Amino acid sequence: MMKTAIFYHAGCPVCLSAKQQVLDALDKNQFAISVIHLGENISTLADAQLAGVKSVPALVLDGSVFHINFGAALEDLKGEQHA
Amino acid sequence: MMKTAIFYHAGCPVCLSAKQQVLDALDKNQFAISVIHLGENISTLADAQLAGVKSVPALVLDGSVFHINFGAALEDLKGEQHA
Repeated sequence: MMKTAIFYHAGCPVCLSAKQQVLDALDKNQFAISVIHLGENISTLADAQLAGVKSVPALVLDGSVFHINFGAALEDLKGEQHA
Repeated sequence: MMKTAIFYHAGCPVCLSAKQQVLDALDKNQFAISVIHLGENISTLADAQLAGVKSVPALVLDGSVFHINFGAALEDLKGEQHA
């Protein structure tokens, strides 16, 4: 039986870059992957919180929550604004 | 050519639990996996910092650093002490 991998994000560039790399790296023979954009549908937020998601991006592997800090330091965000 | 996946940790129970689940989930056809225990060999610390690692556990996928927050809240740590 496939395990579940759910990637939660909120659409920001940092999340999307992490999404691509993290999902690419997962073993597709083990995991059925879904992606949930918390900003698009407010009803998903309650589910995410129930799953234990406290920040985005987050990856939930078969029920275990991994919050990912992809390095979205304030410095990085400043860089984007200047670009 | 295999991509590299390097998991950095410091030996704490939270890191080790994350290590098992994260490494199990990676696609072994894509990645050559190594695990580095920063507490065991101080010389690895400089390499980790050069790679951009700022906290542990961290997973470096082909040069991109993903800092993982596995939910080591103070409450969790308190729970361990009482157990």
